[in-house]
Amino acid sequence: MARITTEPIVVKHGLNLPEPGLGDNRSHEKRTRDSLQLLCSGPVFIPLNTARKIPAVLEQSGFNIEAIAVLGECGWELADVRPSGSHANLFGLAIDLGSTSVVFYLVNMETGEIIQTISMENPQRRHGEDILDRILFAGRGGLSTLQDEIIKLINQAIARMCQENSIKPESIYYCTVAGNTTMCHFLLALDPAHICKEPYIPAVNTFDLIRPAHVGIDINDQGYVYVLPNVGSYFGGDLLAGILASGMYQKEEISMLVDVGTNAEVVLGNKDWLVACAGAAGPALEGGILSCGMRAQEGAIDRINISPQDLSVKYTTIGGSKPKGICGSAIIDLLAEMFRAGIVDQTGKLMKDRDPARIRQIHEEWAWIIASGDETATGKPVYITQSDIKNLIRSKGAMYTILNVVIQSVGLTFGDIENFFVAGAFGNYINPENAITIGMLPDIPIERYKGIGNAAGEGAIHVLLHRDSKKELGKICERITYLEMNVRGDFMNQLTGALFLPHTDLSRFPNVARRLNLGS
Amino acid sequence: MARITTEPIVVKHGLNLPEPGLGDNRSHEKRTRDSLQLLCSGPVFIPLNTARKIPAVLEQSGFNIEAIAVLGECGWELADVRPSGSHANLFGLAIDLGSTSVVFYLVNMETGEIIQTISMENPQRRHGEDILDRILFAGRGGLSTLQDEIIKLINQAIARMCQENSIKPESIYYCTVAGNTTMCHFLLALDPAHICKEPYIPAVNTFDLIRPAHVGIDINDQGYVYVLPNVGSYFGGDLLAGILASGMYQKEEISMLVDVGTNAEVVLGNKDWLVACAGAAGPALEGGILSCGMRAQEGAIDRINISPQDLSVKYTTIGGSKPKGICGSAIIDLLAEMFRAGIVDQTGKLMKDRDPARIRQIHEEWAWIIASGDETATGKPVYITQSDIKNLIRSKGAMYTILNVVIQSVGLTFGDIENFFVAGAFGNYINPENAITIGMLPDIPIERYKGIGNAAGEGAIHVLLHRDSKKELGKICERITYLEMNVRGDFMNQLTGALFLPHTDLSRFPNVARRLNLGS
Repeated sequence: MARITTEPIVVKHGLNLPEPGLGDNRSHEKRTRDSLQLLCSGPVFIPLNTARKIPAVLEQSGFNIEAIAVLGECGWELADVRPSGSHANLFGLAIDLGSTSVVFYLVNMETGEIIQTISMENPQRRHGEDILDRILFAGRGGLSTLQDEIIKLINQAIARMCQENSIKPESIYYCTVAGNTTMCHFLLALDPAHICKEPYIPAVNTFDLIRPAHVGIDINDQGYVYVLPNVGSYFGGDLLAGILASGMYQKEEISMLVDVGTNAEVVLGNKDWLVACAGAAGPALEGGILSCGMRAQEGAIDRINISPQDLSVKYTTIGGSKPKGICGSAIIDLLAEMFRAGIVDQTGKLMKDRDPARIRQIHEEWAWIIASGDETATGKPVYITQSDIKNLIRSKGAMYTILNVVIQSVGLTFGDIENFFVAGAFGNYINPENAITIGMLPDIPIERYKGIGNAAGEGAIHVLLHRDSKKELGKICERITYLEMNVRGDFMNQLTGALFLPHTDLSRFPNVARRLNLGS
Repeated sequence: MARITTEPIVVKHGLNLPEPGLGDNRSHEKRTRDSLQLLCSGPVFIPLNTARKIPAVLEQSGFNIEAIAVLGECGWELADVRPSGSHANLFGLAIDLGSTSVVFYLVNMETGEIIQTISMENPQRRHGEDILDRILFAGRGGLSTLQDEIIKLINQAIARMCQENSIKPESIYYCTVAGNTTMCHFLLALDPAHICKEPYIPAVNTFDLIRPAHVGIDINDQGYVYVLPNVGSYFGGDLLAGILASGMYQKEEISMLVDVGTNAEVVLGNKDWLVACAGAAGPALEGGILSCGMRAQEGAIDRINISPQDLSVKYTTIGGSKPKGICGSAIIDLLAEMFRAGIVDQTGKLMKDRDPARIRQIHEEWAWIIASGDETATGKPVYITQSDIKNLIRSKGAMYTILNVVIQSVGLTFGDIENFFVAGAFGNYINPENAITIGMLPDIPIERYKGIGNAAGEGAIHVLLHRDSKKELGKICERITYLEMNVRGDFMNQLTGALFLPHTDLSRFPNVARRLNLGS
């Protein structure tokens, strides 16, 4: 994907410098700086390492050089010099630092093109799928281990991308990272202890620029690592990235942005105001903890359809191979399809008599078989259990409740929302109609829903390609009113009603009720 | 010496922060930053290392902390946080990076007091007393050796000062360095190759701020090393330091500043204009290469007096012990006294018949004995040879000629100079009358001469205590017109006349001629 950009945070300038003589005895450094400052319209900082390279490059090139400048904390910095005609490539690395998966985007800083995207499993999962377990592990002296693991992963991704694209790590000048507050604390070995206990405060909201070597990231030493800020413990840079990427903070009309994940993160507002809230929705929505949940890899069921007539099941898998499990993008579809087909009732209970052929007891609980052992890659069935369903309903109920608390807090209704941005690792894959059917998302016209894909990744890329992003993020942070969900009593009251499919109050879901003929 | 300052480049602020609560969930970092920014009247950069320390310090101190801020490239940076009442001391280290001696000043940044001054021999001398030899050594692959040696020396000085004052290296937050252009290039491992060959250009004129760890200097990691800029190969930060310390760039009247050393460095001007020039005057003036020259240590003759009547010799030594040699501060006195007493004539020739008791042949040349073997600590005599005298006269002649070329270049005469600042490692010790007598300095009223001591050291200290210094130095650099002495033909013509005592043209030294009854 090529993106048009005129303001990346790494730039290259060709400099044709006058040669020194008796009438012009400026140093190599000053000769370069004077010329570059004209092009950059302001002071340019020259780090010692670059200063050391300048004399030889100037002389070898006959004083025709390429100057590579990166945006520092207060203006341009001369990160590198090369002889003219070197055709130096400039790359940026955007990272979506998720607690489950980490996604890397290699960006050509001159064209804005995304050269490669790779997703890798977060190795910190071995300390707990739930981020709380990892915070506890950090508190037991594991913080530097958590940091080491993620840095190592980043360097593996860099090495792989460099090899596969025949580029050098030194040609990557900037690394931008968007992640939730805790993940960013792990990355930088900042104490996360207070993130999960009252009054829920992070160690850091705004991360100033960091030299790659300081945290051990293998990109150009004279470049920078920029970690997007957070607004609070449960409101991280991943969601701020979504606000940035969606542009909702610049729009006249009201938008809602939801990042669907382990944490449900919500922003409501427009160019004048922004209200945000986040709360734990449970990991079930990402598929991680389901009996047969798996990551979005070859063999994962990613689409599913159940005929309400004959209850026949159709699915597709990633790579088209035999199924091994079910991944996040199919979870919501599965529950909606089971509900539509009457395999679960409004309380989420498996209707054993509706589809006895696929009902079986597994590990002493009732399960519904998606694919039997003879269809799968492993020879074992892929299924969903009664507990899985309860978990899913709890997660979707928490999600809806959070949305509702936010919209009520500003005296609006869901009908006032013109743009409903759905983000998250599988934001683009959520079928809004199915999400409405199970009562996870509000029953508003489908066309108002807009998947913006991986908000964290999109935002991190946006920062690479728009040099005012840091300032814009600062302004967004200042403007946001943050509602602390964990301590609001009405959340628990409202949640109870949302633990039904789609909701105990069917007037909230008129279209679902009509389509499925509920409550009549 | 206590100096009044209200604007040091390292400051401490007491912060009494509000404790976090449900209504104020700012991170520890933001809580600190918001408060500090009010006191600093602008954005404050918080490096990752400091950010990591903040949470624990805030909690341990009940949110009463001391914030230590250092001036960065574009404003204040939070270098450290400590619990309130820690009575954290803040120090700065000013370094005069001389080719012969390196002088260290430990400065209390809160009072401006100089806690300790130590002088150490530059270990690079083993690669050659002449700086040119060291440049050649650098060209043969010795650059990193030269850097290592000087960094090691700096760290030795820091360790010693810390031990003797019971402070920690981490409490030193800033290191300022003034030295000649070549020495600064060695310090930073910058290629000095072009400094000594046409068109005489340094690699770098302006050194941007450097983290201590980057060059391996053992002070607080979150502080900075600042190396004063240079205007050219023969016009270094040492002389710029003198311009800064003398204040001549702010005065209405015309001043001349001379740094007496291996290089004669001269600045002429006032608040509106500055002309500078430098040239090799030879190392003899520093005493380094004389037969019995030594550093200003215990046993060095530092004052000398010869009775013109009975030719009796009186001297004092550093520490009052038996003499071992003669140091820089006594060299000019010695030549002037010998000239006054008629022991050397106007051409510099030893008058063997004038003082036969002290005349002796040593290593096949004539020498005049200052102290005989039975007076000295070593049992060997301390003396000056005919070659020593020739070297001295060549050096003083070069010095005078440089001054004369500069004053002529702007159409002024020495009589127009209101302030004549004499700097150099022993600037305070030069007796202007003696320097005039030998024709090294112009014959103007004695009271216009002002020793400003070690200009490089004074300037480096000035930078620590005046936060606008970096900007002022930038303005001085832009304003200076530099005369390249090495390529001016009239220098050699003028030098010939100056190789006499005091000069072939006695009308230039009317007071000396009158006092010594010369030319009559």
